[in-house]
Amino acid sequence: MERRDVDVVVVGAGLAGLAAARALAGADRDVIVLEARDRVGGRTLNEPIGEGKVVEIGAQWVGPTQDRVLRLIDDLGLETFPTYTGGANLFERGGELARYSGTIPRANPVGLAEVGVAMWRLNRMASAVPLDAPWTAPKAERWDSETFASWMRHNVRTEVARDILRLAIIGVWACEPRDLSLLHVLFYIRSAGSLERLTDTEGGAQQDRVVGGTQLIALRMAEQLGEGVLELSTPVRGLAHDDGVTVTSDRHTVGARRAIVAVPPTLAARIAYDPPLPAIRDGLSQRMAQGSVVKCMAIYERPFWRDHGLSGTVISATGPVSVAFDNSPPDGSPGVLLGFLEGAAARAHADLPVAERRAAVAVCFRRLFGPDAAEPIGYVDRAWAADEWSRGCYGGFMPPGAWTDHGAALRAPIGPIHWAGAETALVWNGYMDGAVGSGEDAARAVLASLD
Amino acid sequence: MERRDVDVVVVGAGLAGLAAARALAGADRDVIVLEARDRVGGRTLNEPIGEGKVVEIGAQWVGPTQDRVLRLIDDLGLETFPTYTGGANLFERGGELARYSGTIPRANPVGLAEVGVAMWRLNRMASAVPLDAPWTAPKAERWDSETFASWMRHNVRTEVARDILRLAIIGVWACEPRDLSLLHVLFYIRSAGSLERLTDTEGGAQQDRVVGGTQLIALRMAEQLGEGVLELSTPVRGLAHDDGVTVTSDRHTVGARRAIVAVPPTLAARIAYDPPLPAIRDGLSQRMAQGSVVKCMAIYERPFWRDHGLSGTVISATGPVSVAFDNSPPDGSPGVLLGFLEGAAARAHADLPVAERRAAVAVCFRRLFGPDAAEPIGYVDRAWAADEWSRGCYGGFMPPGAWTDHGAALRAPIGPIHWAGAETALVWNGYMDGAVGSGEDAARAVLASLD
Repeated sequence: MERRDVDVVVVGAGLAGLAAARALAGADRDVIVLEARDRVGGRTLNEPIGEGKVVEIGAQWVGPTQDRVLRLIDDLGLETFPTYTGGANLFERGGELARYSGTIPRANPVGLAEVGVAMWRLNRMASAVPLDAPWTAPKAERWDSETFASWMRHNVRTEVARDILRLAIIGVWACEPRDLSLLHVLFYIRSAGSLERLTDTEGGAQQDRVVGGTQLIALRMAEQLGEGVLELSTPVRGLAHDDGVTVTSDRHTVGARRAIVAVPPTLAARIAYDPPLPAIRDGLSQRMAQGSVVKCMAIYERPFWRDHGLSGTVISATGPVSVAFDNSPPDGSPGVLLGFLEGAAARAHADLPVAERRAAVAVCFRRLFGPDAAEPIGYVDRAWAADEWSRGCYGGFMPPGAWTDHGAALRAPIGPIHWAGAETALVWNGYMDGAVGSGEDAARAVLASLD
Repeated sequence: MERRDVDVVVVGAGLAGLAAARALAGADRDVIVLEARDRVGGRTLNEPIGEGKVVEIGAQWVGPTQDRVLRLIDDLGLETFPTYTGGANLFERGGELARYSGTIPRANPVGLAEVGVAMWRLNRMASAVPLDAPWTAPKAERWDSETFASWMRHNVRTEVARDILRLAIIGVWACEPRDLSLLHVLFYIRSAGSLERLTDTEGGAQQDRVVGGTQLIALRMAEQLGEGVLELSTPVRGLAHDDGVTVTSDRHTVGARRAIVAVPPTLAARIAYDPPLPAIRDGLSQRMAQGSVVKCMAIYERPFWRDHGLSGTVISATGPVSVAFDNSPPDGSPGVLLGFLEGAAARAHADLPVAERRAAVAVCFRRLFGPDAAEPIGYVDRAWAADEWSRGCYGGFMPPGAWTDHGAALRAPIGPIHWAGAETALVWNGYMDGAVGSGEDAARAVLASLD
C-alpha cells in the first residue's frame, strides 16, 4: 500500500474540496485530494448530448451576490449566460394552467396577498438569525421547535398560499415543509440574503448559467492542481488523528498535518475516525440529512414551447414535476426541458427504473406544453439520493432541534480535522457559491493553524 | 485474511443479533456473529462495583407485557426482582421539592388535570396508528408534520403540565419535545401499549430488574452459541450482496446466504454496501437518529435516603439530572443512586470529562437527598452518544416527516439483507423486549426465505 506524506489531505473533489486544494496549493502547501468517484465535481455533473453540447444533471445556476463562485468562474476563463426567460411562465394547480410573468404566479388576490405577507415576515424573522450561530437568535428555541409546516398551518390560511409556499420550500430545500425546522428555513434565507434571492430567476439564484456546464469549474480547478495531487476512485475509509492525521483508503495511506473533509456531514460520518468523533459532532451527522431531488431533462429537436410564447418556467402543485425550466444550450438547440422531482416526489421516484421516471416526466410535460412534449428524442436524469457519494441534493437540511443542540459542531474543527462543503457555508449555504467559499475558508483556517 | 462460509451472518452481538443467532442455531443453521466491540450486549453493560455485585450502565428494566425478553430471561435461568419503590418520590420544579406517590407528581390541580387529559388524548390518538405502517394512520400526514413541542404548545396551556409532559418525553425518548415527530410519539405509545406503560414503574416498563444485571442475558446467549460462532473485535466494514452476501471486516471475510444487520439504522449506514442501498433506505438512515442519554450512578455505603422515607425516585424540571432511581442491588448494599441526563442535558455533558459529570450529578443529588449525597464513595457513568458502536440511547427516534417518506424502509429486507434491532421492533420498539423480538422475527423471516 502506497504511503504519501503531505501538509494537507483533502477528502472530496467537489467544488469545496477543489477550492480548498487550489487555495492551499496557491500558498505553496503540499496537498493531496482523495475522491471516491472516478471524476471530479461532486454534485456538478455535465452530461454530453451530442455536438459537443452538454446538459447539467447537477447544480447549474449562479446569481447575483454569489461573489465567490462568480470570481472563480472568471478566474478559470469561463463565461455565464442568462437563463432563458422569454415568454410566459405557467402555474399549474387543481387541474388549471395559468400564465404569469415574474416570480409570483397569478392566483386569487387574497392568496397572493398572503404569500406576500408570509415572505415579508420570513425575511424579517430571518434577519434576526446570526449565520454563525443560528441557535442564539432571540426566538431560536421557538423557531427550532416547529416545522415549517406547523408555521404555515398557524400563519397562512388560504390553500393557494400554502400551495405556493410549499412549492417555494420544495423548490429551494428539496424537502417537504414537514421535514424542516423553521429556524433552518430562516437561517437559509439569511444566508442567501432574502427568500426572493432563493426563488427568483432574474435577480436571484437561478439567473445565470455557465457556458459549457458547471462541471467545468471543477474540471479546470483539477487541471490546475498539477500532477499527483488528485487521486480519483479513492474512497476514504479511515481517518486517524492526533496532532496530525493518517487517512486510509482502499489503495493509499496519506499522512498529513491537517485534513479538510469536504463532504456532507451524513457522509463524513461514514468514515471510521480514530479516536471516534465527539458525541456532538456525530449527533449532528445523524440529524442533518440531504434533500431529495431527481433532476430530469427531456430533449427535443427544438424548444417548441417558445413558439407558443412560453418560457418553459413552470411551478406545479399537481406534480410530480414541481418545477420546470427551459434548459436548452445558449443557441437554443436542441430544446431541453428541465423538470425537478423534489421532496416526496423525488423519494417516490428515486428507486424506480429510469424508464418509469421518463414516462412520468413525459406525462407532466405533455400536460404542460402539449402533445409535442410527449415524445422527447432524448432523456437523462439523476436521482441524487441514490448516488452513493452524494446521497441527496441540493444540500443538507436541519430537522427541528438539530441546530439547537448540535449546530455548534457543523463547522468547528476537531483537532487537525477541518470541515468544508456547501452544508458548512455561512453565505449561500447549500449553493455552489457556499461550497467554493467554504473550501476557501477552510484552507485559510488550515493555513493559519500551520503558521 | 480468513474466509468462512455459513448460512447466515449476523452483524452485531447486542440482544437482537444474539437472539437472531440463537434462533438460527436452534434451527440447525450455520451462523456467525460479527461484533465490533470486545464484548457482547450492545446497549446492555454490567459494571462491577465489588463483592461480585454490578450496576448496569445500559438498559436495565423489564416490565409487564414484555413477553419476549421475560421468556428469554426465564429460559436462560435468570431471575428478576422489583425496582425499589418504598417511600415517597420527589418532584423538583422551580426551586421546590414535593413528595408524591405513584407516577404523577403532586402539583396544582389544573396542571394535573391537563396532564391527565393530554395522556388520555395521546393514548387515544396512538390507538389509530398501525404499528407496521404508522404513515397510513388516518391523520398520519398531520401528525408527522409537527413536533411534539408544537402539539404541546397548542394543546397544553399550563407551564406545570408542559414541564411534566416534557419530563415524560425526555425520560422515555431521551430527546427533547422539539426533536420528535408527534407521529413517532404515537407510534411508540402504541408499540408499548400506552403512555403509562412507558412511564410507570409498577405495572410499567420500569417495574423489574434482572438479578446479576441485564448483560447476563447477552452473555448467556453467547455462551450457548458454542465455539467459533461469535467473533468479537470485528467491526464490519463492507457488505457485498446479490443472491447472497459477502461481509468484510478488518480481519475476516464471511460468505453467507443471508445477512441480519442488527445495529441501529444510523450505524448500519456506515457499512459500505455493494451495490449501494436504495435511496429510501439510505434516507431513513440519514433521518432516524439515536436518543441522547448519560446514565450516571453514584455509590454510597448504604441507601441512606430510605431512612428518610424516600424511594429514590425523582423527576426534576430543574436538572441536569431529570430522572433518578434507587438502583441499589437487591440486598440494598451498597446504596446506589441512578441519575439520568437526557436530551439537551445529555448533549451538553456527553463530551465533558467524567469528573465534571460526576460533580454536576453530585450537586443534583445533594439538592435532592441532602448533604449525605454530596460525597459518593464511587461513581460510574456512560455517555452513550460518545460510544462509537452505539452513538446514542435509549433507542432511535423519527423527526417529523421521516415516517411518511422513509418509514417503509425500516424493516423491509433488501435482497438477502434483513434488519433487526430495537429500532425495528413492532412491539416495545426501543426496549430490550423489542430488540429480542426483532431478532427472533428476523431469524424467522430468514429461515422462511431459506426453505
